[in-house]
Amino acid sequence: MMTLQVDNHGDIPETMRAAVLFGPGDIRVIEKPVPKPGPGEVLVKVAECGMCGTDLKIYDGHFPGTPPYGAFTPGHEWTGTVVALGDTVDELAVGDRVCIEAHHGCGRCENCLAGKYTMCLNYGDSAKGQRASGMTADGGFAEYVVHYASSLYKMADSISFKDAVLITTAGTGLFGLDSAGGYVVGQDVAIFGGGPVGLMTVQLAKQLGAEKVILCDIDQNRLDLGKTLGADHVINSSETDPVKAILDLTGGLGVHLAIDSAGAASIPDLLLHCTRRGGKLLLIAFYAKPVTLDLAKAIREGIQIHTSRGEGGGDVARALHLAEMGRLRCGELVTHEFPLENIADALSIVRSHEGDPIKVAIKF
Amino acid sequence: MMTLQVDNHGDIPETMRAAVLFGPGDIRVIEKPVPKPGPGEVLVKVAECGMCGTDLKIYDGHFPGTPPYGAFTPGHEWTGTVVALGDTVDELAVGDRVCIEAHHGCGRCENCLAGKYTMCLNYGDSAKGQRASGMTADGGFAEYVVHYASSLYKMADSISFKDAVLITTAGTGLFGLDSAGGYVVGQDVAIFGGGPVGLMTVQLAKQLGAEKVILCDIDQNRLDLGKTLGADHVINSSETDPVKAILDLTGGLGVHLAIDSAGAASIPDLLLHCTRRGGKLLLIAFYAKPVTLDLAKAIREGIQIHTSRGEGGGDVARALHLAEMGRLRCGELVTHEFPLENIADALSIVRSHEGDPIKVAIKF
Amino acid sequence: MMTLQVDNHGDIPETMRAAVLFGPGDIRVIEKPVPKPGPGEVLVKVAECGMCGTDLKIYDGHFPGTPPYGAFTPGHEWTGTVVALGDTVDELAVGDRVCIEAHHGCGRCENCLAGKYTMCLNYGDSAKGQRASGMTADGGFAEYVVHYASSLYKMADSISFKDAVLITTAGTGLFGLDSAGGYVVGQDVAIFGGGPVGLMTVQLAKQLGAEKVILCDIDQNRLDLGKTLGADHVINSSETDPVKAILDLTGGLGVHLAIDSAGAASIPDLLLHCTRRGGKLLLIAFYAKPVTLDLAKAIREGIQIHTSRGEGGGDVARALHLAEMGRLRCGELVTHEFPLENIADALSIVRSHEGDPIKVAIKF
Amino acid sequence: MMTLQVDNHGDIPETMRAAVLFGPGDIRVIEKPVPKPGPGEVLVKVAECGMCGTDLKIYDGHFPGTPPYGAFTPGHEWTGTVVALGDTVDELAVGDRVCIEAHHGCGRCENCLAGKYTMCLNYGDSAKGQRASGMTADGGFAEYVVHYASSLYKMADSISFKDAVLITTAGTGLFGLDSAGGYVVGQDVAIFGGGPVGLMTVQLAKQLGAEKVILCDIDQNRLDLGKTLGADHVINSSETDPVKAILDLTGGLGVHLAIDSAGAASIPDLLLHCTRRGGKLLLIAFYAKPVTLDLAKAIREGIQIHTSRGEGGGDVARALHLAEMGRLRCGELVTHEFPLENIADALSIVRSHEGDPIKVAIKF
Repeated sequence: MMTLQVDNHGDIPETMRAAVLFGPGDIRVIEKPVPKPGPGEVLVKVAECGMCGTDLKIYDGHFPGTPPYGAFTPGHEWTGTVVALGDTVDELAVGDRVCIEAHHGCGRCENCLAGKYTMCLNYGDSAKGQRASGMTADGGFAEYVVHYASSLYKMADSISFKDAVLITTAGTGLFGLDSAGGYVVGQDVAIFGGGPVGLMTVQLAKQLGAEKVILCDIDQNRLDLGKTLGADHVINSSETDPVKAILDLTGGLGVHLAIDSAGAASIPDLLLHCTRRGGKLLLIAFYAKPVTLDLAKAIREGIQIHTSRGEGGGDVARALHLAEMGRLRCGELVTHEFPLENIADALSIVRSHEGDPIKVAIKF
Repeated sequence: MMTLQVDNHGDIPETMRAAVLFGPGDIRVIEKPVPKPGPGEVLVKVAECGMCGTDLKIYDGHFPGTPPYGAFTPGHEWTGTVVALGDTVDELAVGDRVCIEAHHGCGRCENCLAGKYTMCLNYGDSAKGQRASGMTADGGFAEYVVHYASSLYKMADSISFKDAVLITTAGTGLFGLDSAGGYVVGQDVAIFGGGPVGLMTVQLAKQLGAEKVILCDIDQNRLDLGKTLGADHVINSSETDPVKAILDLTGGLGVHLAIDSAGAASIPDLLLHCTRRGGKLLLIAFYAKPVTLDLAKAIREGIQIHTSRGEGGGDVARALHLAEMGRLRCGELVTHEFPLENIADALSIVRSHEGDPIKVAIKF
Repeated sequence: MMTLQVDNHGDIPETMRAAVLFGPGDIRVIEKPVPKPGPGEVLVKVAECGMCGTDLKIYDGHFPGTPPYGAFTPGHEWTGTVVALGDTVDELAVGDRVCIEAHHGCGRCENCLAGKYTMCLNYGDSAKGQRASGMTADGGFAEYVVHYASSLYKMADSISFKDAVLITTAGTGLFGLDSAGGYVVGQDVAIFGGGPVGLMTVQLAKQLGAEKVILCDIDQNRLDLGKTLGADHVINSSETDPVKAILDLTGGLGVHLAIDSAGAASIPDLLLHCTRRGGKLLLIAFYAKPVTLDLAKAIREGIQIHTSRGEGGGDVARALHLAEMGRLRCGELVTHEFPLENIADALSIVRSHEGDPIKVAIKF
Repeated sequence: MMTLQVDNHGDIPETMRAAVLFGPGDIRVIEKPVPKPGPGEVLVKVAECGMCGTDLKIYDGHFPGTPPYGAFTPGHEWTGTVVALGDTVDELAVGDRVCIEAHHGCGRCENCLAGKYTMCLNYGDSAKGQRASGMTADGGFAEYVVHYASSLYKMADSISFKDAVLITTAGTGLFGLDSAGGYVVGQDVAIFGGGPVGLMTVQLAKQLGAEKVILCDIDQNRLDLGKTLGADHVINSSETDPVKAILDLTGGLGVHLAIDSAGAASIPDLLLHCTRRGGKLLLIAFYAKPVTLDLAKAIREGIQIHTSRGEGGGDVARALHLAEMGRLRCGELVTHEFPLENIADALSIVRSHEGDPIKVAIKF
């Protein structure tokens, strides 16, 4: 019944250059067919694709649910220009420059129907429509990629492709704030971890009206950058006890909301101890191992622990609007750009932190 | 058991000048004893006290629950300096400059225990501790006033008394946004009514990250001011159909949140028709008569109708923090100041709008 | 890529009997092709299909968005047995007996992605997947009907098809309670309107632990039935002032939640006046004309007004679980059953209330 | 200004028998003055006072914030009859039989004003009005006790004093469910721990409409009792892997809500592994030591972790209403009663579990 009606501009080639994972640590750039958009999907010519810790896990073969070696193209922080539309798509037009939400739910499980599409019960089931671009389906380390139109947002001209990479990152921070209630105006917020998610969350917390935004990290460069991006206070936790420092800054009470965007197993217990009675924790990073924390304190003090994964809740769209108003500094966090052919070098920088990268991206 | 331990600075006189209501439209400035703060209360030397439509209702004798004529001093938008502390008060100190939440609940009814103190079930029962300063108890059209320490917020030096008057007003707008969910980042918001509440709400919606903030009024001066305060679009609804204009600005969908801060009975139906499916209405003004609206539209489209009264939810504290960060323009909305002795003139200006007032205040 | 893999049991005929609307008030039962399920859809052999006021609006030609005359089959409260599966369906199996949520969203607009699929921004756009069975697409006044598997719920053997009709109705009441917060345990609830939605809502409110459930109607038979279904108090508002009676039952405070399931324009103002400060209104019926109410009371007392349309939020599944536990009385509310060929008679009974019907249904 | 107007029934003696803590493990029953109710308070003649694990901590000297040895009377699960009223009390009358919420907030901190009185920022500051009866102020292991009228609820005649002890316990479970959203109708719930809180929570979850309620414990007697109280499934986790069993019962998905009412440090990780994507954890027990859990799973799957302490949110009132409707089985959980003079024996039974106690109480 649904015919595939691709608006195939003559200049879309049959094949493209794409990074493909052939085994743990073995990524190669090869020639591969350009995909075709299905109903509700669009084909995007990729302009840039950022990298994050999840890409390292995929690269190392530690990420569950990825397609088989020899076929799979990772990359989930991509941006580019729409070049073809699948059937029924009128939300976007050819020529639109877009940024992405990687996670698309099946739309038919209990969680998707309730709006919780990052928690899709059919995660990894592409037949049912679930797709985490660059995780459970081909992503953006390639010249072209298909994705659902409803997971892409048209950007104003004022937003560069470099910006777009960080808007997806901002979506992660904003979805986290949203999950924790979203109403931080006039409250104190501590953020542990000055990586891209943390630095975008610093900005977002200020944009939503937070009073004291306190950034903790062990890397002074990141703290200095955090300060220029709006953190009211920065704490180098390799030098200063962050719990004590935060209590000092908040009259001994602790912050209303303490966020971990770093993912070190020692952090959740620190968060608990710098949060006031009745406050909240927000965890938006992954832990490589089990976490030990004084949960009794959370119970005694009625502290709630919120979690979120990636960007959901439509929050990339909201982050994009903030960026379009000129209220988020994005592209400047892309410190390193590599051509696709050098993707292994790029991944190596993400792992080694050599040259103090914030966001490393593949630029087409 | 509780002894009244007032820190009575020698310079607090026994009597003071205070406006007292003697009947409808009959307000006189007389000499009256300076009140004494009870447990948990403070005595404040008033610096300034704003006026609003509620004061007109009180003046005219149309406000329920006011104390008897010949004794009652209205005024609920006051600010000043703490000069004496009641028993157990350590939240504030003598010398602190404070802004106010007028509504203090009984703290013991079902609603107060649930945090809904503006909806206190013991409204007007001063024996049980409920107090709406200037409404159910003596307020700030006097040289001195007592209030609960927990309803007053210490202000930084950067906040002027003029600012403080508008921070209370901002509390009304912010409590409304809070009641409607508080998470407007990246959303479109329409505000009907460019009076003090509306103008503060314009600023607040922007501070919380709203995308398009659209202000509607029939007074071009107020619209022009709204524009300088951050409204992205202004609509003179005496010239332009506001529903059509708002639909045009929002791709035909309507805004996510439509707010009435004006209180004209024709507005709620307009709000409904400029709000998108699944959107929200927020009503923070009072209607002098019954309101007629196409409620079926609200049901068909799942539009929720939120209401709030005055400033609650601790939102004056949050608004104060925004002001302290330099993110709210406040004092400049005080367009007219009068000495206490001329209070009848001041009230007359509020009623007549003569000289295009925004906020009229008594200055001590 | 997606092949239509229908598990076509030999006994599915090519054509079927179906009621088709040919014009206002002109419904005819004709022979029509049996539809085929697409991806994610199933074909259901209809066992029973209830009727409600919406069907009258459709019958009369007053319902927006219906397919053209001569082709459209209404009926949205249907139930039956799955006889064929569309591609990718594994949520249901052939032979499953199912009950329905009529509303299926597009799954790709801002509202659907947020879980608000009854407020789909693509309402009526079948190409994008939105479908309100029996409203914007063919429904269950026919021997066979297709619908999305994700909008159908498999029923235990203990649930009869008659029960199933009322489970959809219960979904409307439960979605309403859900929209109003869903936590009514120990609270007082008034329900205006003792029709099917009202009677199911009486039961649901009790099942969720409400204390006093008060049913108001003008029809004593419905009130008597409401009493046997669990209403703690019933008020015949043709004899007794319901506001006064409810205030008397609640110590003068009013109920925590007042619900209109009747849709008379006079009711919302009554609800407002029988609700306590800080309470809630819930509107789940449609008004034929504009509604006039004392909105200032809602604002002064912080009363929130919730609305919902039909059954959403996955609440039919939850209602089904209650029924399966034996905690909802359903099928007995079907007071009149007609064969499909007599559908015009059935509709006539719904309109005239002749014979005091509660739920009228077509039985196959 | 506030005069102490005690309605002093002639029969209230000057002194009473009361258990007083003289040191760790040293509790003695002595003669002590009968307290007098202050403003907003009442004097209650105690009929019964339950014990829980917190009493052991207090007995052992491990509970922070208790009054000095030689003066302090513990006991927070008490019930009895009002015998005198403090000033302004009209919520209760002499002769009312009442059940208790132990926690009363200061009513003036940020948390209390927001309705979060169990998280009072002035915890332990009796001068400001905070009082946790039997924890930070004298409690109910005495013939008479004073408490705030607003923390006591008048009980219908159908509720026995034995019932009342468990209604407070139910308040803990209900406040927990409330903190986790309160809308569990049709959902699956697992409860770890078949002590008094767990057994009341089993009943509450069913009363709120939960579908499968699964109780896990290592004590078969408690599981058997849980079954008679409404648990749909019970799992003896000393014999069966509870995670596997719960996954089996829920189609491999896990429950929507997993609750720990036991407080063993191994449980939170088990909860995480038997909860579905997008589900919730609720922790309402205290851990004696740090807890280790696979927090990454919570983040990956969007599982939120809710906590609550004791009974708040007005939920004792709601639990009482359920009990008054005959929907909670309470008093039968009091398996052991002791006279006040034998309080040390009673505490010893709570510690040793000798005789398989559920709730141990002092009966007057």
